[in-house]
Amino acid sequence: MTLPSEMNALLLVGDGYSRNPTGSVLEAMEPYVTPGRIGVPTPTGRQLLIKVSLASINPSDVMFVKGQYGQPRAKGQPAGFEGVGIVVATGDDPMAKWFAGKRIAFATGVSNWGSWAEYAIAEAGACIPLIDEVRDEDAAAMIVNPLTAIAMFGIVKEEGEKAFVMTAGASQLSKLIIGLARDEGYRPIVTVRRDDQAPALLEAGAAHVLNHTAADFADRLKVVMQAEKPRVFLDAQTGPVASQLFFAMPRGARWIIYGRLDMAQTVIPEPGQLIFAGKKIEGFWLVEWMRQGKERREAAVMDAQKRFADGRWHTDVTAVVPLAEAMARVPAELAKPNGKVFIKP
Amino acid sequence: MTLPSEMNALLLVGDGYSRNPTGSVLEAMEPYVTPGRIGVPTPTGRQLLIKVSLASINPSDVMFVKGQYGQPRAKGQPAGFEGVGIVVATGDDPMAKWFAGKRIAFATGVSNWGSWAEYAIAEAGACIPLIDEVRDEDAAAMIVNPLTAIAMFGIVKEEGEKAFVMTAGASQLSKLIIGLARDEGYRPIVTVRRDDQAPALLEAGAAHVLNHTAADFADRLKVVMQAEKPRVFLDAQTGPVASQLFFAMPRGARWIIYGRLDMAQTVIPEPGQLIFAGKKIEGFWLVEWMRQGKERREAAVMDAQKRFADGRWHTDVTAVVPLAEAMARVPAELAKPNGKVFIKP
Repeated sequence: MTLPSEMNALLLVGDGYSRNPTGSVLEAMEPYVTPGRIGVPTPTGRQLLIKVSLASINPSDVMFVKGQYGQPRAKGQPAGFEGVGIVVATGDDPMAKWFAGKRIAFATGVSNWGSWAEYAIAEAGACIPLIDEVRDEDAAAMIVNPLTAIAMFGIVKEEGEKAFVMTAGASQLSKLIIGLARDEGYRPIVTVRRDDQAPALLEAGAAHVLNHTAADFADRLKVVMQAEKPRVFLDAQTGPVASQLFFAMPRGARWIIYGRLDMAQTVIPEPGQLIFAGKKIEGFWLVEWMRQGKERREAAVMDAQKRFADGRWHTDVTAVVPLAEAMARVPAELAKPNGKVFIKP
Repeated sequence: MTLPSEMNALLLVGDGYSRNPTGSVLEAMEPYVTPGRIGVPTPTGRQLLIKVSLASINPSDVMFVKGQYGQPRAKGQPAGFEGVGIVVATGDDPMAKWFAGKRIAFATGVSNWGSWAEYAIAEAGACIPLIDEVRDEDAAAMIVNPLTAIAMFGIVKEEGEKAFVMTAGASQLSKLIIGLARDEGYRPIVTVRRDDQAPALLEAGAAHVLNHTAADFADRLKVVMQAEKPRVFLDAQTGPVASQLFFAMPRGARWIIYGRLDMAQTVIPEPGQLIFAGKKIEGFWLVEWMRQGKERREAAVMDAQKRFADGRWHTDVTAVVPLAEAMARVPAELAKPNGKVFIKP
């Protein structure tokens, strides 16, 4: 197979970090990525060169292209953390060579050769050979969200209480966690912004779905917290709604922030609760979790693939956008609720 | 010795908790305590009845009488958590009887027979027999602040970094911690609100004293944080100054809130730091620390007495106010900086 010397890609506009964080909404593509041509890279060592079939757009991708993701951008390099594709070249390492020709799910990590491109570079250790039963749409989103789901649900299990709280209850990530929770008898209490999001989430295994824009939100919140006594709060949102949830939670509550959908100020609602009720506020970052242990990471990857293959997990698709249309269409597709948006190079 | 049947005391006005927390400043006595007569209690079991020589006024007393201390008030009972005095009666337990006639430092705990009275009740296990070398002024403040100091400095030592941050740097508690830090080669970075508070704190062992009301505060803060890389932030203040300090601290910083001098909103300055920089926010409460281990508590009590006896620790006295004058004078005396206020029954 002859590889081209150049390829089409969406290239990072910014360098390093943003000085003025503007939240997790991708209001437009132009400030952050630009379509361009760039040389196809040559994999070395344990690297794989992948012909990308489908690239995922995760909240972490949006944060990254905006310079808000805790890792610096390299201007002019392709964006995109995750995807599915075929290995078309490898480095010399035997572990890399083993992947030659295979269909894989991959995470590019900090290679700066991202998946929003015709070809991407990933370390063999961050790739999963796929069985045929797994759809491209599931495979392209098989690493970032599933590992985050398994890692954060692990925190819930360690804490011991069956009930736990999540904002952004209709996100793909929340749905994965709801699936895990249902299988093990846990009780997710999730918030959404529209009533029509509730039935599907209750069906999937949520114990309670609270619309945080509803007039009776505060009342329902109080009743649910008193009945369920959740300890862990997995928060993608921050801002006033998250503060209100944390305040309503019982003694010993842990507010674990992993995203920031709301750019409003995030207030500690009653610092006395930290002193006298043993409440805590912390963060979760998948990259840090992955650094802390290869074994549990690999077990999680295996678990994720099985769940997608046998249908316990399923990725809801909002849109598959051709690379050439991505600049024009992606922001509007991302703004739609309940599903995932992919780029097809 | 014949005991009177009644005594003078400052009695709690409120019951349970306050619904509207108003901070740690005692703006007046009348809303919270009232002078009155109450029967002298009879000690049982391990209880001691103490003729109070001097009663301490701690920030935790102020928070408690205002109904903001995490433990409910019992209306009509004497206030005051701590003091020094002579044991004039005991319960039947041999441990209690051993204390008969002795001069002791005591903590009343949740007996609701507090030290702002002619007689107080304390458990023998929460009392320290005193050697003559310890002044009443040191003995009356020998438990709450010293244990808090030893407990919180223990957190600093566990974290490992030599540098750490404290607000309310000129408080008695901060001075105790500065003394501990100096002896073990740690580097306290403390904030104050007036420049004239700095020289004594630098002399006592503070590595840096930052005036948070000064025009160059933000600049000095940045320089000091970059040079010292502190990990633990012991915060009595909350509000915007505390947020600013936490934001300026490096990766992995722990913001440990133990008081709330500032009633302004406390904002999480950049939630992304919790996600990507591993920062955490939590609380410290002495009562909870004491529950977690009798042995380390007793070791800390022993250490505290030695430090006061040999002069390594010393309580600065702002005023000793007779019980009959307490209603009129205490709020103004408490508002003065740098020293401790006592009530003399």
